[in-house]
Amino acid sequence: MFESAEISHDIDKAEAEKYYPDMRTALLDAQFDLVEAGTFPVIIVIAGMEGSGMIDAAVNAHTVLDSRHLVTHTFDSPTEEEAERPDMWRFWRVLPAKGDIGMYLGSWYGDPLTGHIMDKSSKESFEQQLERVKRFETMLANEGALILKFWFHLGKDAQKEKLKKFENSERTKWRVEDSLWGGSKRYKKVRKAAEDMMRVTGTEQAPWIVVNAENPHYRGLTVGRTILNAIRSRLDNPVKVTEAVTSVTVPQLDDRTVLSTLELSQMLEKKDYKKQLAKYQDRLNELVNHKKFKKHSVVLAFEGNDAAGKGGAIRRVTEFLDPRVYRVHPIAAPTDEEKAQPYLWRFWRRLPRRGHIGIFDRTWYGRVLVERVEGFCSEADWRRAYSEINEFETEMMDAGVIVIKFWLAIDQDEQAARFKAREETGYKRYKITDEDWRNREKWDEYASAVCDMVNLTSTSKSPWTLVEANNKYYSRVKVLKTICKRIEQALK
Amino acid sequence: MFESAEISHDIDKAEAEKYYPDMRTALLDAQFDLVEAGTFPVIIVIAGMEGSGMIDAAVNAHTVLDSRHLVTHTFDSPTEEEAERPDMWRFWRVLPAKGDIGMYLGSWYGDPLTGHIMDKSSKESFEQQLERVKRFETMLANEGALILKFWFHLGKDAQKEKLKKFENSERTKWRVEDSLWGGSKRYKKVRKAAEDMMRVTGTEQAPWIVVNAENPHYRGLTVGRTILNAIRSRLDNPVKVTEAVTSVTVPQLDDRTVLSTLELSQMLEKKDYKKQLAKYQDRLNELVNHKKFKKHSVVLAFEGNDAAGKGGAIRRVTEFLDPRVYRVHPIAAPTDEEKAQPYLWRFWRRLPRRGHIGIFDRTWYGRVLVERVEGFCSEADWRRAYSEINEFETEMMDAGVIVIKFWLAIDQDEQAARFKAREETGYKRYKITDEDWRNREKWDEYASAVCDMVNLTSTSKSPWTLVEANNKYYSRVKVLKTICKRIEQALK
Repeated sequence: MFESAEISHDIDKAEAEKYYPDMRTALLDAQFDLVEAGTFPVIIVIAGMEGSGMIDAAVNAHTVLDSRHLVTHTFDSPTEEEAERPDMWRFWRVLPAKGDIGMYLGSWYGDPLTGHIMDKSSKESFEQQLERVKRFETMLANEGALILKFWFHLGKDAQKEKLKKFENSERTKWRVEDSLWGGSKRYKKVRKAAEDMMRVTGTEQAPWIVVNAENPHYRGLTVGRTILNAIRSRLDNPVKVTEAVTSVTVPQLDDRTVLSTLELSQMLEKKDYKKQLAKYQDRLNELVNHKKFKKHSVVLAFEGNDAAGKGGAIRRVTEFLDPRVYRVHPIAAPTDEEKAQPYLWRFWRRLPRRGHIGIFDRTWYGRVLVERVEGFCSEADWRRAYSEINEFETEMMDAGVIVIKFWLAIDQDEQAARFKAREETGYKRYKITDEDWRNREKWDEYASAVCDMVNLTSTSKSPWTLVEANNKYYSRVKVLKTICKRIEQALK
Repeated sequence: MFESAEISHDIDKAEAEKYYPDMRTALLDAQFDLVEAGTFPVIIVIAGMEGSGMIDAAVNAHTVLDSRHLVTHTFDSPTEEEAERPDMWRFWRVLPAKGDIGMYLGSWYGDPLTGHIMDKSSKESFEQQLERVKRFETMLANEGALILKFWFHLGKDAQKEKLKKFENSERTKWRVEDSLWGGSKRYKKVRKAAEDMMRVTGTEQAPWIVVNAENPHYRGLTVGRTILNAIRSRLDNPVKVTEAVTSVTVPQLDDRTVLSTLELSQMLEKKDYKKQLAKYQDRLNELVNHKKFKKHSVVLAFEGNDAAGKGGAIRRVTEFLDPRVYRVHPIAAPTDEEKAQPYLWRFWRRLPRRGHIGIFDRTWYGRVLVERVEGFCSEADWRRAYSEINEFETEMMDAGVIVIKFWLAIDQDEQAARFKAREETGYKRYKITDEDWRNREKWDEYASAVCDMVNLTSTSKSPWTLVEANNKYYSRVKVLKTICKRIEQALK
């Protein structure tokens, strides 16, 4: 994979200067059109051998392009903020919006590469990390991102020479001293790791481009023009992804589903309710103050029929909690900023730090519920969402997040009664709109979306809890009890 | 993931009989239309708990459908034929053609599941095997296959009951005795393994459908109708995959490429040629007769410019070999049978057994060379081919196959001279056509396709050898020498 990149190219400054002005103008024009269109983000990953000039490339990009729509990110050890969240959080938070260019040095390849090169991770675990990165990039590409990944390559001797030059100058000495992989000592290992990386993660959607990095002019012109070609080509041929999805519809032979078999009539008397509520609220407080809780965080996902009592249940959860510990996120239509990002972005940005609780009133499951039923996204989009969501929750759980998901279920009669009560009660009237009545007409479609959701995303580590919610007392206590039980298990 | 599938459904024979006739007619109609259209194959995977009736399902399918276009495959221990080839070979050889239905019991999930359930493979290796399966299925889906995967589920008690019933009858006793996973003893482990399997390999292209398998009528009707819906839906909405590929074109700043930097003038005098040729031909014979060679096989891939001398080189390789040991495969346009299969199928079917040599005159690289340049396939198709080819070669190498790839390079003058000589030499005239002259006009396009090919598919374990072929003597000796060296390394 390095055959081409080990052929050196001599281009001197004078010759390069012949090309630069045109390339710069063309790049700036392309960026202008990209911003103007605002239809896709550009993600540029720069990785390479030590001494290959990755930083220079970023500096050059900023002299050529409009920095209002270009951001370069480097990644050192995670900040405290970052370390307390799932590994990928720090990358999600700096994804470029549609129309913008994000340039990544180090990037999501940094840790896997360094770990493997420094012998801290086995070949198997390296490949597993790469597979995860591949899934991440596939998701980004399916959401429309244009992804270009450059590997700046140096032959062994070329690298030695470069590093020596750096060492000999006071101004560049730090580059060698800060070396993460020990300069050319591990050359062979780096080369092999890069090859494995490209083999596993080089896809038609997120290809690797290997560039000989000896000559800075050759490197700069090649990178600049490759980026230019790719942006132009995407602007000229907008991508409409029509993936080969398999449309599975499993027929219902009887009315026995996970929803219909719930005993919605279950109830609790008021006095029992008060006793049990207090018990579990106290228990939750104890758990949150447990010293082991500091190593975890909790994500509560609330979904349910309209008027099933999500808000009321959430209030009972938070009633006696320290307000600094939790945050409730009501999920409504995405903001403009959120629309310019991959679907899951608005949930990633709200993930709680360790020791905290994030409560979502409506969640990332909107994609496979309302968006599916109302046709707000394509079939391909919601069908691939199931595995993207499983991936999202796996990443949370790997980082110690306790994910607890509730579906609050009521029947149609109960819903009608509650809707009417809302219309008749002044301070509740804002809670009921024509849309609620319209959604109600699609009751069966929603029900089968819920069944699919449970079938495809309820796992032993992140199960769905279906809550019989015709009786609010019963429902609230079941929610609190489940939360306590799941946290207890995790702290054990 | 099993919540729905653990709800039991009581459907008695009389009730089921109300549905069967319509379903049967509809299925047979759908199959007829599928055969008539001949546009995609249907792949049905059946897996499940022991005692869940997988065999019965296959039997039922054959009573309903036209068995001329339905084949059911089960997989025991690999046959001798199969064991001497890469793991996936036995699945490739029984893929259904377009218009046909292939039903798989056990399937490519059999070994990974059994290995993990019987504690013979770690969680990591299990997940790696599943990732490989996922890549395989993604490739199949991208090639147009409709893939449906059923998991026949039983709750713990339901399974115990089923197995007891089998045990108590002389006619079904063998089912329990032949049990691979030990009946219900490992129930929990099986359930967890199935969950992991579905989480990793359940995609929008190849979804898992979990079916409660207690009641045979419910199971049969659910499976039958789900298959019916999926086939109908695909027939009604033919898939045109337009994937979000990234069109990368790396500009050439100078004329220094892996091809242009070859020293084509290298040559060998006739007397040296004769000596060296004999030396390496003898050496090759020794190597092939080495006892360790029995554990390997060799795949020789020959590509090159038209008239670069592939045929001549191949003849020198085989000249003194035992004809039972090797087979030469000239790759021309695909046959009808091959066109009805995924692109790589015609190469998989020709893979040599252990101890044998398969020689390919033109290869699977046709996709990224002639098909790319001549526009015989879509950009998405050839762009994804690089990683599919890397996967193909990795699977070969994992099975001990020594993969040796040659690009025979000549320059334009040499080619013109050879073309003319062919036209003037009676017995060589068949070798030159108008098409050869036409291809020549696309010299530069072919050259850059070759560079991309080398950049993306030359790995340390399966490198490309570029052969300077203006001088046939030099070229043939380099080919033979490389083959000997690579086999020597492998036998060490």
